[in-house]
Amino acid sequence: MARARRVAVVGAGHSRFGSHGVSAKRLFAEAAAECFASVDRDFERGRVGEAWIGTLGFGGGQLGDAAPLMLEHAGLPGIPAHRVENACASSGFAFRNAVLAVRGGAVDVALAGGFEVMNDLSPLHQRYWLGVSGDTEWERLAGLTFPGVYAMMARRHMHDYGTTREQLAAVAVKNHANGALNEKAQFRRACTVEEVLGAPLVASPLGTFDCCSTTDGAACVLVASEAAARGFTDAPVWVTGSGAATDYLAVHDRESLTRLDATSRAARAAFAEAGTRPAKVDVAEVHDCFTIAEVLAMEDLGFAEKGGGGPLVIGGSTARDGDVAVNPSGGLKAKGHPLGATGAGQVYEVFHQLRGTAGKRQVPGAKVGLTHNVAGSGAACAVHLFSA
Amino acid sequence: MARARRVAVVGAGHSRFGSHGVSAKRLFAEAAAECFASVDRDFERGRVGEAWIGTLGFGGGQLGDAAPLMLEHAGLPGIPAHRVENACASSGFAFRNAVLAVRGGAVDVALAGGFEVMNDLSPLHQRYWLGVSGDTEWERLAGLTFPGVYAMMARRHMHDYGTTREQLAAVAVKNHANGALNEKAQFRRACTVEEVLGAPLVASPLGTFDCCSTTDGAACVLVASEAAARGFTDAPVWVTGSGAATDYLAVHDRESLTRLDATSRAARAAFAEAGTRPAKVDVAEVHDCFTIAEVLAMEDLGFAEKGGGGPLVIGGSTARDGDVAVNPSGGLKAKGHPLGATGAGQVYEVFHQLRGTAGKRQVPGAKVGLTHNVAGSGAACAVHLFSA
Repeated sequence: MARARRVAVVGAGHSRFGSHGVSAKRLFAEAAAECFASVDRDFERGRVGEAWIGTLGFGGGQLGDAAPLMLEHAGLPGIPAHRVENACASSGFAFRNAVLAVRGGAVDVALAGGFEVMNDLSPLHQRYWLGVSGDTEWERLAGLTFPGVYAMMARRHMHDYGTTREQLAAVAVKNHANGALNEKAQFRRACTVEEVLGAPLVASPLGTFDCCSTTDGAACVLVASEAAARGFTDAPVWVTGSGAATDYLAVHDRESLTRLDATSRAARAAFAEAGTRPAKVDVAEVHDCFTIAEVLAMEDLGFAEKGGGGPLVIGGSTARDGDVAVNPSGGLKAKGHPLGATGAGQVYEVFHQLRGTAGKRQVPGAKVGLTHNVAGSGAACAVHLFSA
Repeated sequence: MARARRVAVVGAGHSRFGSHGVSAKRLFAEAAAECFASVDRDFERGRVGEAWIGTLGFGGGQLGDAAPLMLEHAGLPGIPAHRVENACASSGFAFRNAVLAVRGGAVDVALAGGFEVMNDLSPLHQRYWLGVSGDTEWERLAGLTFPGVYAMMARRHMHDYGTTREQLAAVAVKNHANGALNEKAQFRRACTVEEVLGAPLVASPLGTFDCCSTTDGAACVLVASEAAARGFTDAPVWVTGSGAATDYLAVHDRESLTRLDATSRAARAAFAEAGTRPAKVDVAEVHDCFTIAEVLAMEDLGFAEKGGGGPLVIGGSTARDGDVAVNPSGGLKAKGHPLGATGAGQVYEVFHQLRGTAGKRQVPGAKVGLTHNVAGSGAACAVHLFSA
């Protein structure tokens, strides 16, 4: 292997998440403007050498060739740009591409971002577009939706490990409490266990408060080589590990219903590269598309033994003042989940947490961060580790 | 800049191109199997560290998360994989990602490929899906299609430089003559100037023989570090230059209707990196989605002055026995244009041409090759240079 360079995140931007009737171009421009303005000194847009933009192209408003268009609206016309689409993990993988390119010396500064506008479709079309990121023959055409897939995982996890609805609800309660402090979150209200348990069922055992929402939004970050980063800031956030993996698309082809193997393998790769371990992580933004998904993530990332995810969450260990603050942003659950923007949005949160600039939701003294971005029902995953 | 490693193409596979009613999964598996079998020695699939797969997801049969699914069908489940979508340049950009990753030391062996199945849609839906890779507000919604955009470029080129329909027809005649020798081409028949000029008009001045077709197909290649490549083969095809650029999506935002600026800039970057120039190129696979596009490519890549593309082609300089053999595979025109597969298919052709294994369509003594892959009406372009 060639000797790789150290790379850092030196800037980050994040549009409001929600349903505001705003176009993808405007949302991406909003995120990019904040990103560029967030660099401490000596940054010009001309320093960006290449860009990777994640989106599912939800609804088809700009299905093809979205990367050049978004770059144009970000004020960066002309530079090499790639659209990356790995379902809900699109900008987690866009970020990985940027990290690899800067590490490897292809460019000194890269932009990684993503966007999605989901609320301009009728509910019928929303279901169609969500479905086409999962298995078609055995799942989608049989009527199985993503809530259905995760509900099966939840039921099996309950059966095998005694996980309870109250433990799942604890995920929602924690993430809504965090989201209430995040001015960019889609849902800025706390909720109670009783509300979560009493909410209408979507796919048993998952109710509306167990499911993330339909969200519009954009986010992007700047990745720089060590030399470039030191010119831009005295507080770079180092990317210490990047791991990625894929899995069988159809859930029935996998070994287990209660483990996302792509997460396990991506996490192992990232932790090995960073030379650290879960116990050292202070803050983690994980892919809680459903409450059960955060429980699985806790286990598959190594924060708990298999079956220990539910007790971990309900015990408070993952609250902002716990052993590891999980989803201080509110997560996909409360901050919202604009598919292609989520991975970059996670990096945005960790960037601010490790710099101590996360405002009301700051995790005191956070030094090591993690992001975990999952595609659909788990067919791909990207995990990154960061240190202040 | 960190010192980059030399990288080579060590294997290549290419499904039949055409309309056969075969699924994308089968076509990609077919290309991958040929690709793996083409490595001279000591290759195992386990050596592939990461993959980039280009597709527009035409028709939405597998719109989202296609990369893990294709990897599964290629016999490579589990490895990190990214879907790259830059319209018709999707796998040209997938290839660039693989080259950057291997150069930079992220992996020693990477797979780059692409696929598209376009013939399972009704003509109405085909038009919709093609349109969403171009500008929406000012082009698509006003009824402008890709043939219409390129027809405007052709008319303006004729006006400014005296380019003739006969010169455009010469592109089709040459590429059909080449495609007739390619057993994987969609159209294996020669055509005459009279046929081209007498064909029904699609968008004046472009007739059916001036336009590429609606094609299903897949292609992929293996990119390896120098050390890995020397283990696999005594005949690696070195990647000596990689250039990419983007442009405004809407044609009216660009400086000129008769130049694809993304091509010019991508070519300059690739030639600078390779330390060579157009006159040294023996064989070039260029993006002839329309006959005018090959004329523009000749100029924008530097094989002719602006306005000199038409005379260059009609004079025979780009025939298989000319100064530079352009599209010996038959090009998009005769080999076919399964959007996401085209860029990787171009690399497949150059790989065989530089190894002297291109059979009946071999360009004698070819030592330097070029590929040129354009997104839609020119909003993105990837250019690569190769040497035996």
